[in-house]
Amino acid sequence: MILATLPIDGRRLWADLMTLAEITDPERPYTRRSFSPRFVEGREWLSRQFEAAGLNVRIDSAGNLIGRRSADKPNAGTIMVGSHSDTVPSGGRFDGAAGLIVALEIARSIKEAGIRLWHSLEVVDFLAEEPSEFGLSCIGSRGMAGELEAKSLAYEDPSGERLDRAIDRIGGQTSALADAIRSDIVAFFELHIEQGIVLETRGLDLGLVTAIAGITRIEIVFSGSADHAGTTPMDLRRDALVAAAETATFVAEQARGLAKRGHGHFVATCGILEVKPNAANVVPREARLVVDARSDRRELIEDFCRNLEAEIRQIAKRSRVECSRHAVLSDTMPARCDEALLTLLRASASALGFSTMEMASGAGHDTAFISRIAPAAMLFIPCRNGKSHTPEEWAEPEALSSGAAVIGEAVLRFDRDYRMD
Amino acid sequence: MILATLPIDGRRLWADLMTLAEITDPERPYTRRSFSPRFVEGREWLSRQFEAAGLNVRIDSAGNLIGRRSADKPNAGTIMVGSHSDTVPSGGRFDGAAGLIVALEIARSIKEAGIRLWHSLEVVDFLAEEPSEFGLSCIGSRGMAGELEAKSLAYEDPSGERLDRAIDRIGGQTSALADAIRSDIVAFFELHIEQGIVLETRGLDLGLVTAIAGITRIEIVFSGSADHAGTTPMDLRRDALVAAAETATFVAEQARGLAKRGHGHFVATCGILEVKPNAANVVPREARLVVDARSDRRELIEDFCRNLEAEIRQIAKRSRVECSRHAVLSDTMPARCDEALLTLLRASASALGFSTMEMASGAGHDTAFISRIAPAAMLFIPCRNGKSHTPEEWAEPEALSSGAAVIGEAVLRFDRDYRMD
Repeated sequence: MILATLPIDGRRLWADLMTLAEITDPERPYTRRSFSPRFVEGREWLSRQFEAAGLNVRIDSAGNLIGRRSADKPNAGTIMVGSHSDTVPSGGRFDGAAGLIVALEIARSIKEAGIRLWHSLEVVDFLAEEPSEFGLSCIGSRGMAGELEAKSLAYEDPSGERLDRAIDRIGGQTSALADAIRSDIVAFFELHIEQGIVLETRGLDLGLVTAIAGITRIEIVFSGSADHAGTTPMDLRRDALVAAAETATFVAEQARGLAKRGHGHFVATCGILEVKPNAANVVPREARLVVDARSDRRELIEDFCRNLEAEIRQIAKRSRVECSRHAVLSDTMPARCDEALLTLLRASASALGFSTMEMASGAGHDTAFISRIAPAAMLFIPCRNGKSHTPEEWAEPEALSSGAAVIGEAVLRFDRDYRMD
Repeated sequence: MILATLPIDGRRLWADLMTLAEITDPERPYTRRSFSPRFVEGREWLSRQFEAAGLNVRIDSAGNLIGRRSADKPNAGTIMVGSHSDTVPSGGRFDGAAGLIVALEIARSIKEAGIRLWHSLEVVDFLAEEPSEFGLSCIGSRGMAGELEAKSLAYEDPSGERLDRAIDRIGGQTSALADAIRSDIVAFFELHIEQGIVLETRGLDLGLVTAIAGITRIEIVFSGSADHAGTTPMDLRRDALVAAAETATFVAEQARGLAKRGHGHFVATCGILEVKPNAANVVPREARLVVDARSDRRELIEDFCRNLEAEIRQIAKRSRVECSRHAVLSDTMPARCDEALLTLLRASASALGFSTMEMASGAGHDTAFISRIAPAAMLFIPCRNGKSHTPEEWAEPEALSSGAAVIGEAVLRFDRDYRMD
């Protein structure tokens, strides 16, 4: 049953997305770095679109740009939809912007269809989701969740500007940062490109994001002896690369095993491997690995780390090398999406005839922070070859329209089904 | 039975070695690069020592410095002993120089003992054994073996000097290069530090070098896909590092297996491994390996290369990556030392009470080239921790005296036992 046929205008949605994309550093499309003049220019354009959609525009104290349509029922709580307008350097046109323009199109369609809502509706452009020049990501959603720490506000960018000053410069008010913390959000939805190849590979329309993976990064350094590659017999070697190679193989095997269990998303990657002295005729003295493990299930990460630690001890012993460093570089917890909102998204997609699958997000998103203060859910659309953070990044116009229709339908269903006095 | 107690003077030998070591670029001891002013200064000092030992000094057309004592029996052939006086940049005091000063001490002791020899005796300082600024090693021994190619003579060093001009500048005569080719050598002996840790580890005095390993270098590049480390499931990855890690593990396992067969020296090393883009959150797109395999038995190298090639095909298939490059960078044949001369060295060591073992040399030496035109043998002495090509390089004075005594004894035995009319 389709609750209401929202008049989602796919052409308008696409045209707006391309217009926003053109607000870019011209010498390196597509770049709209948070806090930059281009970013401010993008927000000025967005503000005008928000206003044209009948939204009241403000910037909260954490620097988030918000367009609000007030509730028919006072104090009914807020349904929030959005993403972010900032990009990585030389990024794409879809990461962030797609979810933001979809949110705008939903607000616009609801207005045009003359649909009244019990709840307030907000479209949000979170500040600085991508790692900013201050070395911090998800600044706006952290602020909204009350997780923007005072010490982070003192971070400086390469020009020497402090983060609190930069937030204030673009319209925030860090002296009243607590005002940004929200307790009125009853539902949050974010559409995003998948940044992976699962939906495309399986030929599916949409991904229902069950959780956003926690990320654990571990640095491992093996130290052996830089001996002559010709004169040192195999059994007298202390080859650091042999230990690192066995570790990299173990990481991949272990990750395949944990992923196959089917009890959650699990991936692990050795993305960095560096060898010293890295000469053809010298047995490697040192090898440094960085392992990145991600899962929506904390227990899988813990299993993995425990097994890795035990294996590294065995490998070091066998290779007669020392594990001279084994350090956790970073460790974030997984965030779960709200079951009721996922049920709504699933039912909406099904009613509109779209194929879906449940999946975890291996990448971080603002939704992870909002999920700490409110029911939150994410919808993925396919992107070509899984490419993201590059100008090649691409999603089909039909995928954007489909996603907008499904989130729009879910907003209407939520507004109808979750009316509390 | 000791044929003659050669009056080897260990203190004099050591003092000479240290004197030669002091002829170094002062800012980077120990450096005496071939063709450099320091190298020429070293040879001037060597020439004076050769003359004081009663040797007639000349430089052959390939640039080798030779001190000769003529045979009692005309046309009886030449026993040659020597090594090289050039060094790598910031090298040690023993690699090359030890064998050269030992040869000088032997000639000096024979003279002082008033021993007459049926054969001629020559002490040789081969030109440019280490890789020179011209990108070529073993220049003098190649020349003496008739293996210095015309195209190599046109190589230029970074200053633009041509190799033939440089050889002529230090006293050679490349217009008459064939004059350097020798057919009169009946026995060649070279003492060298082991540059490995086998003798030290086993607590043995001397190594009888049975062969000098051939070296085969192979470059392998795996090409996969640089996907997002968070969003790309394990079974959809094309991870080039996983393939490279399995290859490095296979190389080590295969080498251990071939070494354990006990049918010859075998070592193989992945000394170089480079990953692109080498970022923690990106699945590696490319991994480049260089494999260095060495053996005194060509068939072991051939087995290894065949097995490696088959394994790489399997690994690439399994990891869903392409092996985009698999190239032989260099490939030299092993050289065998002369059995009769080894028997003489073994008997001499035994008579003088020194412990020995047979071993192959994993490093290249001038002996490899001389073995192509004459019976040739090498004797290794232990060096501390196997370190070489570094200022830390160290051999004990006793080891040098022992080696000198054994080669001296072998020279005398050869001179007695191999008299042909």
